[in-house]
Amino acid sequence: MNKTINLKNEIRIIEDFPKKGVSFKDVTTILKNPKALKYTIKEMSDYIEDKKVDVIVGPEARGFLFGVPIAHKLDLGFIPVRKLGKLPFKTHNIDYDLEYGTDKLEVHIDGIQKGQRVAIVDDLLATGGTALATSRLMEKVGGEVACLNFVIELTELEGRKKLKKYDIQSLVNYKV
Amino acid sequence: MNKTINLKNEIRIIEDFPKKGVSFKDVTTILKNPKALKYTIKEMSDYIEDKKVDVIVGPEARGFLFGVPIAHKLDLGFIPVRKLGKLPFKTHNIDYDLEYGTDKLEVHIDGIQKGQRVAIVDDLLATGGTALATSRLMEKVGGEVACLNFVIELTELEGRKKLKKYDIQSLVNYKV
Repeated sequence: MNKTINLKNEIRIIEDFPKKGVSFKDVTTILKNPKALKYTIKEMSDYIEDKKVDVIVGPEARGFLFGVPIAHKLDLGFIPVRKLGKLPFKTHNIDYDLEYGTDKLEVHIDGIQKGQRVAIVDDLLATGGTALATSRLMEKVGGEVACLNFVIELTELEGRKKLKKYDIQSLVNYKV
Repeated sequence: MNKTINLKNEIRIIEDFPKKGVSFKDVTTILKNPKALKYTIKEMSDYIEDKKVDVIVGPEARGFLFGVPIAHKLDLGFIPVRKLGKLPFKTHNIDYDLEYGTDKLEVHIDGIQKGQRVAIVDDLLATGGTALATSRLMEKVGGEVACLNFVIELTELEGRKKLKKYDIQSLVNYKV
C-alpha cells in the first residue's frame, strides 16, 4: 500500500527562516501530499508499535501534526505537551532552556498514568532541548520514555548526545 | 467497529478558563481516550467524505489535532493555517477581529489550488471569528469552502449566523 518514497524530496528547504543563517526544514509539503503523509505516519507508527507503547505524546504545535494521526492509527490516546498557560486543566511542568533564558512545558496531571510507556513524537530533532524537556517531564509524572520519534534529524546539532539514554527514530537526516 | 458513544461524556468542562466566567470545553480528554478519538475522527471524516472534498485545512493549534488524522484517514492532504509569522514559506493572509484589535491568519501561497474544495476543521465553533477568517482566506486564494467541521459548537454565541452561507457540522452542542 505504501511504496517507499524518498522523503527528502517531500521536504521544502527555506533559507534564512526564522532568522538569517538557518536552513529551515518545512514539513508542510509532507502534510500537503497524501502519499508522503501516509508514508511518514506508517514509518513512525511501525517503529512505535514494536516498542509496546501505551500512549503518544507530542509537544505543540508541530508535534500535534504527526502525533495525533499516529495515535489514531495505533488505537492509542494522544497527550499534548504545551507551553505554559495553554492547557486548561491542572498541570505538571518542567523548565527548559531557550537560546535566551528558560521557558516551561506542561502536561495535564492526569495525562500520563504511572508506568505507562510513552512515545514522544515531533517533526524535528535539532539541539534536543524540547525533546529532553519533554522526556524529563514524562519521567517526572511517572511515565517511561519508550522512544522518541522525529521526521527529521539535524545531525550536526547533536541532539542525540543530549538524549543518549533514549531510543531515537528519525526518518530523514540533514547535517544542519 | 465504532460504537456510538456519547461524546459529551468525553469532554471535560473547566470553569473560569482562560478567564473568569468562561466555561472551557477541554478536548484533551477526547484525544486521550482511543475510543473517543476514533469516534470523533470517524464522524467528522464520514461527513467530509460525502462533500467530495479535495483538501483538509485546520487553523493552529487545536485545528491540527483533528485536521491531520482526518486528512490521513481520507487520503487527503492537510494545509495548516497559522498566525502571522509562523509559516516559513511565502503566504497569503487575512485580517480577523479579536476581542481587542485585529490579527492575521496566513496560508502558504501553494497550499490551495484554484477550485479545490476545502473542509475546514477545528475543535470549537464559538463566535465564529476564526472560522469566518479561515473561510475567507480560502476563498481569497481560490478555494471553495465545501464544509466547516467542529467537534463542539457553543450555540448561544451564534457563530452560525456569521457563517450562514457555509455548510456546518458540529458533533456536540452546548449553549455557552
